[in-house]
Amino acid sequence: MNPSSDQITRAHTEKMDANDPIAHLRDRFVLPESDIYLDGNSLGPLPHGVMERLEKAVKEEWAQGLIRSWNDADWYPAPQRAGAAISRLIGADEDEVIVCDSISVNLYKLLVGALRMRKDRKIIVSEIGNFPTDVYINAEVAKMMGCELRCVLPEEVEQAIDEAGENLALVQLTHIHYKSGRVYDMEGITKRAQDLGGLVIWDLAHSAGTYPVQLNGCNADFAVGCGYKYLNGGPGAPAFVFVARRHFETMHQPLVGWHGHAEPFAFTQEYKPHASIEQMLTGTASQLATLVLEAALKVFDDVDMNVLRQKNMALGDLFIALVEQELGGMGFELASPKEAEGRGSQVSLTHEHGYAIMQAVIARGVVGDFRAPDILRFGFAAPYVRYVDMWDAVHHIREVMQTEEWKRPEFNERRAVT
Amino acid sequence: MNPSSDQITRAHTEKMDANDPIAHLRDRFVLPESDIYLDGNSLGPLPHGVMERLEKAVKEEWAQGLIRSWNDADWYPAPQRAGAAISRLIGADEDEVIVCDSISVNLYKLLVGALRMRKDRKIIVSEIGNFPTDVYINAEVAKMMGCELRCVLPEEVEQAIDEAGENLALVQLTHIHYKSGRVYDMEGITKRAQDLGGLVIWDLAHSAGTYPVQLNGCNADFAVGCGYKYLNGGPGAPAFVFVARRHFETMHQPLVGWHGHAEPFAFTQEYKPHASIEQMLTGTASQLATLVLEAALKVFDDVDMNVLRQKNMALGDLFIALVEQELGGMGFELASPKEAEGRGSQVSLTHEHGYAIMQAVIARGVVGDFRAPDILRFGFAAPYVRYVDMWDAVHHIREVMQTEEWKRPEFNERRAVT
Repeated sequence: MNPSSDQITRAHTEKMDANDPIAHLRDRFVLPESDIYLDGNSLGPLPHGVMERLEKAVKEEWAQGLIRSWNDADWYPAPQRAGAAISRLIGADEDEVIVCDSISVNLYKLLVGALRMRKDRKIIVSEIGNFPTDVYINAEVAKMMGCELRCVLPEEVEQAIDEAGENLALVQLTHIHYKSGRVYDMEGITKRAQDLGGLVIWDLAHSAGTYPVQLNGCNADFAVGCGYKYLNGGPGAPAFVFVARRHFETMHQPLVGWHGHAEPFAFTQEYKPHASIEQMLTGTASQLATLVLEAALKVFDDVDMNVLRQKNMALGDLFIALVEQELGGMGFELASPKEAEGRGSQVSLTHEHGYAIMQAVIARGVVGDFRAPDILRFGFAAPYVRYVDMWDAVHHIREVMQTEEWKRPEFNERRAVT
Repeated sequence: MNPSSDQITRAHTEKMDANDPIAHLRDRFVLPESDIYLDGNSLGPLPHGVMERLEKAVKEEWAQGLIRSWNDADWYPAPQRAGAAISRLIGADEDEVIVCDSISVNLYKLLVGALRMRKDRKIIVSEIGNFPTDVYINAEVAKMMGCELRCVLPEEVEQAIDEAGENLALVQLTHIHYKSGRVYDMEGITKRAQDLGGLVIWDLAHSAGTYPVQLNGCNADFAVGCGYKYLNGGPGAPAFVFVARRHFETMHQPLVGWHGHAEPFAFTQEYKPHASIEQMLTGTASQLATLVLEAALKVFDDVDMNVLRQKNMALGDLFIALVEQELGGMGFELASPKEAEGRGSQVSLTHEHGYAIMQAVIARGVVGDFRAPDILRFGFAAPYVRYVDMWDAVHHIREVMQTEEWKRPEFNERRAVT
């Protein structure tokens, strides 16, 4: 091989790693040696320290402390503590974020609660192609509350907001798209909706822990987000919810479980919501799951989200350049914005045989994922993904194509979870 | 001491343990040596094998398998598997029970779903003094759906059902009361409500794992229950939900998260509920929490629920007899039904200084709990509680009263969680 001067070489990517100011963060994770893990947008890896926290929680706090640990091991405020740790990553105040339930459930709370604050308005604006759970919950709540759900294309969102005008109740969008990685203008859309008197609910599933979200900087109203993707809280980790302080007294969510009560242990028969973010709690939440997420968040203790963002943009740019350099004419199309600023920390490609190709690539230890109908999704979590991984991943894809490995029957069988 | 012939002695209780056919089940739990643990109705102890399962889940399945474990480690069907394990304990079919979310959230799903099946009916009957979360959720849903919630005393429930007549939409009751331990006639109430065309939702929080519930034997419609009490699934373990098979097609719950979809990984924009118990799923649930509960349920593998029930009735009878024998004139009153048949596996006492007395008793290692305003609650989980524990517990209470230990300042400070 005799690469031309503008060709990217593996040595080039190794040099980028050597100059990476946050390369050391990779040591905070347990990562299988044989993998190039590009699926942190689906399940973050295990951070060091989590297993130790879990052992203590089970062997000491549960087994020996038993019921006393709700007080003695400070279990009860764990959702608040984990929320506070997340708040810094998304530009919120510590007491505006709490960890509980799933995104689906939290979105339901916020949607009903927000619509109750805009009773005379009847239009919800969302996106065609939003993550399915968001669409399902939006549609369900709209029907239940007698509202109209208008799902439009990303480029039509602003127009749809304007057209709703004084009938705009709320806008619900996913900040970074789960398939394409496209980033919405949080500040602009929030202002546009609020200028008309509407409210906005942001889904930060693909933003929290990887993008320097500024909720309060954008005057955001409400948000939900995911604990098991870029926050590395483990499979199915609890979600988080953000309510701007100015809405604490006026928002009334419908899942009025006892943990959201102003005095849960008074066991009164009348529900009185806690006048804080705690009103978003419902029933007793898995303490083990919450403690795991809390321990996992220590990874971010001294991390500057802007530095992290610079790296994931650079990783994405490098990946795209390598795809162009190495995979030309093989049938791949870029399904993510090409400009880094408008793209989250993932790059998606389409290919008509995307499912089988991804299975073949995974079998080589390059772990991305597939999203129907034809998307190969590669996530670049800056704390542990290396520049050299971009080179190696693209070369594995190239070999899978050149050898036609993806045609093997085992890569073409559909599995339960994709 | 020279006890009279009808007095219960410690030796008498030791003999009961020696004759206990399920005494060996105690070895299935990790129990602190210094405790007499009578709070399994609030948090069950750690079963052996759970920590090992958790270590495998974290160190192998999460850390090494990463996203692949949703398929390769069979994570995805864990809610169904745990549900199937619970089904046997509550007289349901394996595919009628699933593990997810909290009781509060599941109750909300069932209430809205059931009311949608009885659109022309407007009355919900429940109990004054039902567990607060049940009351809050009942009241919220009733208001939202334009229904009237009639909360009555336990002895008035049947009359309230009859009075609602053809306007009865549903009855929502907790099978065994969290404070008193009173047991409702599940079969009789279910039939009474159904004869009028109503539906019934049972909360089995204090029944599952300790009472031989026969959901299908009673022709029950719906039920929810708790994973962290008698099922020993760990602090805040996920809850379970039961839907009778005949309602699979007609019940539509409102928390339409993607895991309840007929084809979750098709990522379609239209919600189509799974025509099975899986429609009760919402978002991605904590896998670690679900696997812990699944592992904990192995405790019940070969247990006959009727034998277990015989023992917890006998423990309660013994405790009440010892309270009468040892604590006369000290201000305690029995707050549970005296007849074992009408009582779950707990005995509650009232005392005007109940809070401080319970703290003093706990400090001696006799772990019960307190429920406002004046209830000392003692739970008798037959798999690990011994007859001799009844003798020792009552004698500790007696000493706390005789020495006035409960008056110490540290026992009179209210803590966050009671």
